[in-house]
Amino acid sequence: MRIVQKFGGTSVGSLERIRATAKIIQGELNNGVEVAVVVSAMSGETNRLLAMAQEMSSAPSPRELDALVATGEQVTAALLAIELNELGISAYSFSGGQAGFTTEGNHAKARIKDVKSEHLIQHMIKGEVPVVTGFQGVDEAGNITTLGRGGSDTSAVALAVAVQADCCDIYTDVDGIYTTDPRIEPKAAKMDSISYEEMLEFASLGAKVLQTRSVELAMRYDMPIHLRSSFNLIQGTRVSKEDSNMERAEISGVAYNRDEAKVTIKGIPDQPGIAASVFGPVAEADINVDVIVQNVSEDGFTDLTFTVPRHDFAATMTLLDSLCVSMHAKEVRGDNTVAKVSIIGVGMRSHTGVAKKMFDVLAQENINIQMITTSEVKVTVVLEEKYVELAVRSLHQAFGLAQEG
Amino acid sequence: MRIVQKFGGTSVGSLERIRATAKIIQGELNNGVEVAVVVSAMSGETNRLLAMAQEMSSAPSPRELDALVATGEQVTAALLAIELNELGISAYSFSGGQAGFTTEGNHAKARIKDVKSEHLIQHMIKGEVPVVTGFQGVDEAGNITTLGRGGSDTSAVALAVAVQADCCDIYTDVDGIYTTDPRIEPKAAKMDSISYEEMLEFASLGAKVLQTRSVELAMRYDMPIHLRSSFNLIQGTRVSKEDSNMERAEISGVAYNRDEAKVTIKGIPDQPGIAASVFGPVAEADINVDVIVQNVSEDGFTDLTFTVPRHDFAATMTLLDSLCVSMHAKEVRGDNTVAKVSIIGVGMRSHTGVAKKMFDVLAQENINIQMITTSEVKVTVVLEEKYVELAVRSLHQAFGLAQEG
Repeated sequence: MRIVQKFGGTSVGSLERIRATAKIIQGELNNGVEVAVVVSAMSGETNRLLAMAQEMSSAPSPRELDALVATGEQVTAALLAIELNELGISAYSFSGGQAGFTTEGNHAKARIKDVKSEHLIQHMIKGEVPVVTGFQGVDEAGNITTLGRGGSDTSAVALAVAVQADCCDIYTDVDGIYTTDPRIEPKAAKMDSISYEEMLEFASLGAKVLQTRSVELAMRYDMPIHLRSSFNLIQGTRVSKEDSNMERAEISGVAYNRDEAKVTIKGIPDQPGIAASVFGPVAEADINVDVIVQNVSEDGFTDLTFTVPRHDFAATMTLLDSLCVSMHAKEVRGDNTVAKVSIIGVGMRSHTGVAKKMFDVLAQENINIQMITTSEVKVTVVLEEKYVELAVRSLHQAFGLAQEG
Repeated sequence: MRIVQKFGGTSVGSLERIRATAKIIQGELNNGVEVAVVVSAMSGETNRLLAMAQEMSSAPSPRELDALVATGEQVTAALLAIELNELGISAYSFSGGQAGFTTEGNHAKARIKDVKSEHLIQHMIKGEVPVVTGFQGVDEAGNITTLGRGGSDTSAVALAVAVQADCCDIYTDVDGIYTTDPRIEPKAAKMDSISYEEMLEFASLGAKVLQTRSVELAMRYDMPIHLRSSFNLIQGTRVSKEDSNMERAEISGVAYNRDEAKVTIKGIPDQPGIAASVFGPVAEADINVDVIVQNVSEDGFTDLTFTVPRHDFAATMTLLDSLCVSMHAKEVRGDNTVAKVSIIGVGMRSHTGVAKKMFDVLAQENINIQMITTSEVKVTVVLEEKYVELAVRSLHQAFGLAQEG
């Protein structure tokens, strides 16, 4: 058995937490498991370093920012190796470059190109622990690069693939993935397992426990992820390939996202190329469009509605106001008090009528659905934000997700 | 004109000081000088990192300590590069490894093997500034190594040699080298220039402004050092090859060191190999012996006296007590209230009677000389610590070093 264990910022946020983390690693070694570790910076450290850079410059060089913040994980890795030594375990810290992570050259959001970690396997089979800095690598020219915030999860999965691990354990400060947000629905249940596809939908809906990139990577190489807490010994949620033999419930969970705003351009003269002329400028402004609905054309005019992150609402409205003029459209309307609610589950592939059941449940509660979008394993509706809690609880109940007892 | 500028911990001890440092670099660039920079960690940072390691382990792994503390200079280098960018200057930070520093593998006190910095010259000739972390490199296997405390000076001189600089400017918090300690003799004068040999003697006597290793390296490659303050624009002290045409004063300066203790083994049966049987065990105990005097043998017995650093006094006495028994010597005596006073100067090569003049001056003040040792450019006496100030002032006066006015 060989695993990669990844510990996030709160799991290594103090010397005391680093000691607790070393004990977790020791536990696996005592079970005969071969272990490599990926660490984040101590919580708060990256922000401390960035604050210094911001004090020097309002637009610091991305190359230098990467060199600066990369020190955060280096400190954690060395301290954890020292603590493992203290427990009698041979351990060696490795920076991203030393661990064999080569990335593209785009600083602060580099993508991993290659992970050459054969030398780490040599340590692991001897019972030694390589402690690798997450979130970073070097480009072909040897410059230090970072993968962007949260990239440590991606580092961990990539390392797990490179050292041919059986599983990538991602330790965080939550117990796992829940059927929905326990702050809204106290009966929310922790899921024992979830498929990559479902996890991707949860992650893209803003479940902050796992980065989308890391799940995509895990899915591509079929690397199971065990998402669990470093603050207790409870089994977490296992993210893996869909088990086709398993009897699936209609849906696995209910997710929501309040960070939504809706904009509509009304009365656009209906011609080919409308979408391009709207979404081109929007993409150039680095605004991330999510749900899109284009209404049936009436009398040669059409309405186009889409959602954007709420913090981009003002910028989007400004942009559309000028587009409205150039496209000879009638008007632009916006609403930044909407939210998304989604039901997610691979079970909906085999169960028919799942979407209809969702709409029925919401109708019974007199909740108006403003927009609908679906994927193979998800149905999402956009609704007024004030209905979020009611919608989530009703759906959680109606689809039988509530925890027993 | 091409130079390497090195800035120590106090010169980069805060964001404000880093800004001031960037201005100094800008000043050189504006004069058309090509510049590479070597930086230390922000003052206090190395100790902060070491304290964390010490809290984890009483004997942390040297490899991990090096990986840990190396982050200190990385942070400074990135911040300084960012600040230089802010002034409109292209600058790039480089870790020791990135800058081409290869060292031996002995952590925490690695010696530089090679500096391959051709790629830095390419930046310099374009008016760009490489900002290199001092004090560190990588060994042949790619492990991060450090050169030991103060190694940044050595890094700077080595880099100056590698990029074929005309001079290595070492910025610190003092104005230069003084004829003696101004706290003892207010008339002490700053020296405009000093030879490598003299600087070596000053450094070995504990003048903390320049590390002995860096001066040795500068002497070997004839790389002039300009030692100066980053807190003002005053010219400092230039350390370079002795100028044979120059009329030299008898001596250049008076140095002292209070960190001394004296031990004597009395009545050792006089046989070949005495010195080896004493200094072998002392060296094994990692105790640094300085001045040694062996008295003329009387009736087949001899006395051996030597000095050690004061913090090694207790350990030395314990060691000698047991050696005394095994060597059948009579007794061991110790005195940890002695000090060394030295006169230094290449001028004593051409001036005769310098040592005699020193002894006369001390005799006139009724200061008893306990031990004497000489080199080509230095005469050192060991005396009771309470006489240090009087001896320094008398010698400084008698050799005409006092600053005019």
